[in-house]
Amino acid sequence: MRVAILGVGTVGASVANILQKNAGIISARAGEKIEPVVGVVRDLSRDRGVSIPLTDDLQSVLDRDDIDVYVELMGGVDSAFAAVSKVLKKGKSVVTANKAMLAYHRYALEKLAKDSSFGFEASVGGGIPIIKALKEGLSANHIKKIVGILNGTSNYILTQMMDTNADFHEALKKAQDLGYAEADPTFDIEGQDAAHKLLVLSSIAYGTHGNPEDILIKGITKISSEDIFFAKDFEYVIKLLAIAKVNGDKAELRVHPALIDKDNILAKVGGVMNGISVFGDALGESMYYGPGAGGDATASAVIADLIDITRGNKNPMLGYNSPVNALKLLPISDIRTKYYLRVKVEDRVGVLAKITNVMSENSISIDSFLQKPRNKEEKYTTLFFTTHTCKESDVKRVMDILERTEFVVNRPFMIRIES
Amino acid sequence: MRVAILGVGTVGASVANILQKNAGIISARAGEKIEPVVGVVRDLSRDRGVSIPLTDDLQSVLDRDDIDVYVELMGGVDSAFAAVSKVLKKGKSVVTANKAMLAYHRYALEKLAKDSSFGFEASVGGGIPIIKALKEGLSANHIKKIVGILNGTSNYILTQMMDTNADFHEALKKAQDLGYAEADPTFDIEGQDAAHKLLVLSSIAYGTHGNPEDILIKGITKISSEDIFFAKDFEYVIKLLAIAKVNGDKAELRVHPALIDKDNILAKVGGVMNGISVFGDALGESMYYGPGAGGDATASAVIADLIDITRGNKNPMLGYNSPVNALKLLPISDIRTKYYLRVKVEDRVGVLAKITNVMSENSISIDSFLQKPRNKEEKYTTLFFTTHTCKESDVKRVMDILERTEFVVNRPFMIRIES
Repeated sequence: MRVAILGVGTVGASVANILQKNAGIISARAGEKIEPVVGVVRDLSRDRGVSIPLTDDLQSVLDRDDIDVYVELMGGVDSAFAAVSKVLKKGKSVVTANKAMLAYHRYALEKLAKDSSFGFEASVGGGIPIIKALKEGLSANHIKKIVGILNGTSNYILTQMMDTNADFHEALKKAQDLGYAEADPTFDIEGQDAAHKLLVLSSIAYGTHGNPEDILIKGITKISSEDIFFAKDFEYVIKLLAIAKVNGDKAELRVHPALIDKDNILAKVGGVMNGISVFGDALGESMYYGPGAGGDATASAVIADLIDITRGNKNPMLGYNSPVNALKLLPISDIRTKYYLRVKVEDRVGVLAKITNVMSENSISIDSFLQKPRNKEEKYTTLFFTTHTCKESDVKRVMDILERTEFVVNRPFMIRIES
Repeated sequence: MRVAILGVGTVGASVANILQKNAGIISARAGEKIEPVVGVVRDLSRDRGVSIPLTDDLQSVLDRDDIDVYVELMGGVDSAFAAVSKVLKKGKSVVTANKAMLAYHRYALEKLAKDSSFGFEASVGGGIPIIKALKEGLSANHIKKIVGILNGTSNYILTQMMDTNADFHEALKKAQDLGYAEADPTFDIEGQDAAHKLLVLSSIAYGTHGNPEDILIKGITKISSEDIFFAKDFEYVIKLLAIAKVNGDKAELRVHPALIDKDNILAKVGGVMNGISVFGDALGESMYYGPGAGGDATASAVIADLIDITRGNKNPMLGYNSPVNALKLLPISDIRTKYYLRVKVEDRVGVLAKITNVMSENSISIDSFLQKPRNKEEKYTTLFFTTHTCKESDVKRVMDILERTEFVVNRPFMIRIES
């Protein structure tokens, strides 16, 4: 099988090198040799540390007749989609790690791939075989819920904040120094990357359509040391979660930081690692853990897809159990969960009574309350509340009202609680 | 696809009922209906809670021509092997959860299954798709090491001992009361069950031959409250581990209780849950977590195998990468690891010096030492040692010498340390 690698960065170089280094077991397992024959790069002057021939002429490679499978690692949405579409129309097979392209074009790609194979294991969870688990390992189950830690950068930052009491900016700086965060980390820390991956998983489990713009996405940039203080005191861990679950006849999708019980298995997924819990009606909870990024780890998933193609394993691509349970997206306003509220106030008589009144008047019932011991220097004190399950719109209204209340300093801050 | 279920106990009943309850998604995913047409039981008088026809005439079912796949859930080794062999010879496909049969006859079964499909996902880790992960998800990797918590009964007992300071017998009693341990729990608590599963995994990863009798198997029955005390004090967790790893040109297989770092992801696998860490040369560590037993969970894996058969996914069964790296078993005497030693002694002058001399004379170097504070009533005191990596034979010799030393009470107790 002859393979062209579109985009020879860290992952592309690992794919080429592992196909050569592990050629023995790979051909034994695939039943045939899998040969990387060409790599496409933008800048030919940079050394990629690979021994395969490189070219900067993408179109000529897309036009070649001697390529069986194209491995798309260019990144970006539209240019990648154009390149992949072109070869799929010629009946060529494609393997990709490009979750952004899938987040916007997955169903169009599914149509184009009807007569060929399209592998995207590497698009979620790096080398963790989560797509295969969902499509094949759990194929007997109605998937009730997927809860994933899908972004290693955010998870590293939050783990640092929990373990070392670093504030967000110190933790981000450390992540950047270690190469775990990019110079512009927005995409990772604002939840976009996790949202793209969540759309891929929910399309398999529920056949959900929709783009990132259609789902709730919150980042981790506003998490403060006070939130960490509360989480530790109440035995929670703060994680950036990507959640897809069945809610009535709809699929509820959301990406946001969440307080989870410290004994939840996902609470143990630390540093840059990823972990995905899947709840099936027959199996119950199973969890998949591993490196969510990195050249060799991601290449492991890309090559597993290539080997599956040689084995002729044909599995449906997305929403493969529809029309049985293809679900529409739940409107964001209908989301109901538990909440944590941090309210900074002037420390004077009657404040707590006033706040709790506002809450009950807006049908929010308090589950727990903590007033952080205030040291003399501080002019203000911070109140922490957790609520029972309630409507997000009610919580937002309470935050609006409190923000306008004279003894409240700044807008209250909210984190969802996932139990 | 017409399925016969040989053995309609908890798992068999779940297979029949889930195939009917989830028939919609299962046919959508399989591309055809998967229909349980008959179940074989020993005792027809007992109600199995299934709606499929039952019979106690195994042979007549094995002789039927209208069965496409046989699901073997009879348990036992030879009778199951005879039944499965008979239908495989007729070119029928088989799905089994029977690890004992596989531990002794897996390669014979592989030969017989040449022209049909043979699924055994349910034989290890209950519903966790670990076999699929090893065969397909990690197919780009040289598997360097597999470390598994593969027996839920033992894990529940050890978790109880760690969490509640119960002694072994109290924890076992509780496990039995909750139905997590059988009236005769020997097979689970002595490591046999985990060893059978380990042989299945190592056959996939390394193509290893050999029976349970050929590998190191130790149970958890001698773990004492003092060992728990030490483990907590030194931030270890005690788990029954099943380990398969490459050691030079050999495969090192062993099942035994082990001290592992409390931050190891496997340390978080509590209660009856199973967890398997797999280390690949490309991927690094990935871990798979879920219920290792139970009717519906195990049925989830059985049915996933059935769906794979309808999809025509043909993957090699065992040692599928041999001859590239089929490994012979490492002799037990060649195992080298770190050790924990518990030595009960008379509390008098010079004892510690004498013991440490014996150790150094036998080329065992001490990594850490703890003397448990002795309360006045006690006549004896307990010394705890951990060693650097050394040969098991040297540790055994030291234990022999100490056992014969007058100030030492009872034979010293040893637990391996896995880091």
